[in-house]
Amino acid sequence: MKNFNFHNPTRILFGKGSIAELKDQVPADAKVLILYGGGSAERTGVLDQVREALAGRAILEFGGIEPNPRYATTLKAVEMIRENAVTFLLAVGGGSVIDATKFIAAAVKYDGDAWDILTSRGSVITQAVPFGSVLTLPATGSEMNSGGVITNPEKEAKLPFSSLYCYPVFSVLDPEVTYTLPSRQIANGVVDAFVHTIEQYLTYPVAARVQDGFAEALLRTLIELGPKALETPEDYDIRANLMWTATMALNGLIGAGVPQDWATHMIGHEITALNDTDHARTLAVVLPSLIDDQREAKREKLLQYASNVWNIREGSDDERIDAVIEATRGFFEQMGIKTRLGDYDVDADGINHIVSALKEHGMTALGEHNAIGPDEARRILEAAL
Amino acid sequence: MKNFNFHNPTRILFGKGSIAELKDQVPADAKVLILYGGGSAERTGVLDQVREALAGRAILEFGGIEPNPRYATTLKAVEMIRENAVTFLLAVGGGSVIDATKFIAAAVKYDGDAWDILTSRGSVITQAVPFGSVLTLPATGSEMNSGGVITNPEKEAKLPFSSLYCYPVFSVLDPEVTYTLPSRQIANGVVDAFVHTIEQYLTYPVAARVQDGFAEALLRTLIELGPKALETPEDYDIRANLMWTATMALNGLIGAGVPQDWATHMIGHEITALNDTDHARTLAVVLPSLIDDQREAKREKLLQYASNVWNIREGSDDERIDAVIEATRGFFEQMGIKTRLGDYDVDADGINHIVSALKEHGMTALGEHNAIGPDEARRILEAAL
Repeated sequence: MKNFNFHNPTRILFGKGSIAELKDQVPADAKVLILYGGGSAERTGVLDQVREALAGRAILEFGGIEPNPRYATTLKAVEMIRENAVTFLLAVGGGSVIDATKFIAAAVKYDGDAWDILTSRGSVITQAVPFGSVLTLPATGSEMNSGGVITNPEKEAKLPFSSLYCYPVFSVLDPEVTYTLPSRQIANGVVDAFVHTIEQYLTYPVAARVQDGFAEALLRTLIELGPKALETPEDYDIRANLMWTATMALNGLIGAGVPQDWATHMIGHEITALNDTDHARTLAVVLPSLIDDQREAKREKLLQYASNVWNIREGSDDERIDAVIEATRGFFEQMGIKTRLGDYDVDADGINHIVSALKEHGMTALGEHNAIGPDEARRILEAAL
Repeated sequence: MKNFNFHNPTRILFGKGSIAELKDQVPADAKVLILYGGGSAERTGVLDQVREALAGRAILEFGGIEPNPRYATTLKAVEMIRENAVTFLLAVGGGSVIDATKFIAAAVKYDGDAWDILTSRGSVITQAVPFGSVLTLPATGSEMNSGGVITNPEKEAKLPFSSLYCYPVFSVLDPEVTYTLPSRQIANGVVDAFVHTIEQYLTYPVAARVQDGFAEALLRTLIELGPKALETPEDYDIRANLMWTATMALNGLIGAGVPQDWATHMIGHEITALNDTDHARTLAVVLPSLIDDQREAKREKLLQYASNVWNIREGSDDERIDAVIEATRGFFEQMGIKTRLGDYDVDADGINHIVSALKEHGMTALGEHNAIGPDEARRILEAAL
């Protein structure tokens, strides 16, 4: 096991009716800005539940945060917060709204050009406005970690940042609010959580039994319950397990003390920056191709993954690896998510563009061995056509 | 899954050489009291590593905290802290030292009689002196939770307390410091962590896949690595996995959103209060007898435990339950820990004493169904003779 420093101060309020607990979690004397996305938080009644829990408080609202939240939008929120002396932010939404809120919380307190936060990956952050979240879409894990991703279409950039100042003070997870989510978003969320787990698990062994065992439990849960969530949307236990799984998949715990990959994410981000493909769908395209390409470097963990997650124990090493790659691809397809670049209108020209963007953004030594450069990325993308 | 509120703010600094990181974790301007137990922290050089990391700081030391730490001892530390205006406590030791430090940290800030903290189970605590820990013995999980147990031999009492003010600010976990531990302490630690996990797992199902999967991963790790830790004491990976497993077994995570038992612990505490038997050994005596006695109430989870942890899948339900109870007992015996009351000089008179003590301490409705009263406790103990 590698040395690690683990700290996660976010409080989780989990379960039916937990939005009402906001009244005890948001400081009574705070001037609060509620941030949300499109119309769904309003339509589903989640915003009304939030307003009711905070009735009588000093509250402003900022809606319209996009999926793959835009830099320009966050700057508008920063301005509103400064003008109105807001002291506490409350994100109501999925990963995009929470990511944006983290960035906004840091940008409000940053004296320079907010773009520095992204070019420095967050290292210039020294403080942030305190914030909580009400999660409506289990997927990114943003509700219990300190990172986010912001998109700037003008620069064709989708850039990650993180900072120890960007943990939510609390996050409210009520599985019932996910009943009304479109299948597409549930499918995206399951695949996103799955690939988050894989990025921290499918590297090379370092004798980390706890982290591996936890990751395998999360993967098995997603494989078993993901398809069922699409069939029976109002099953509380299924939604509760998916919600908690997605949070645990990216709150730092399973990644503490182990190598991490993240090449699939970095390549996927450039696909989204190119043509706005849903984040999870880019992962479903890149991952099967990447693990096939990297099968030698990942051999031992691929065999462990085959055995412990998929119960694939027959055949030669390479046969089991082939089988587990196909099982992974099949799981994504079973969730209704296509796994080929062509399904998302990316062709050879698109690949050129993506590889150029990776270079431009300094993403030239990706993966747990820093061995995925532009040539390897091109090979992986071409195999995914 | 049940609703839950999970929050664990303790920072973990894990790995070889991590004691040196104390210099960045203990506030530079603090007046520090280092608390430790018997001579082992001195003998093994751990205290010297701590002193070196904090060289030049304002430091006092308080040694002599016992296994099953005594109330009278904690009061002496409280007096020393008040007289010397100490502002930060650093526990260097195992669960006993850390438990005592938590109690001391709270008692220093409590205006009434410190005994109230124990009779209220910690609910009177409203503040505590900040403290960190350097863990020397993986076992109790005290390094990443907010509870402890204090013994008062005059009252024949061993009483638990907990408070949200009693989380360590940080805990340093260096697996190398466990190389020199006596086999007896390693065995105790493995069994303690095992039973902690069982108390939060082996109840009744609530469709908590993540918690169950994590608990099963911890149990499998202990079963596989516990005996190996006795055979090869200086294997870093084994010690690292046991250390992290013991922490994860009782930091609130696997118990969030699930029923919990703790009857084995409550009955076991009274055995220790009676004749000072090692805590873990009391658990190894009570647990197999308790799960046999409670096999109807625990039936579904016993079958899950048999299958997922021990790979026992053949035979009738009752045969599998019999087999998994024997496997559990066999694991404790394999760790060198006897599992019968007679092995610890407790006879029928002793049982009378233990049952009276349970009544006296209000422990009359134990377990996940509050169904283990004095009669059930007597039956469980008699079957353990």
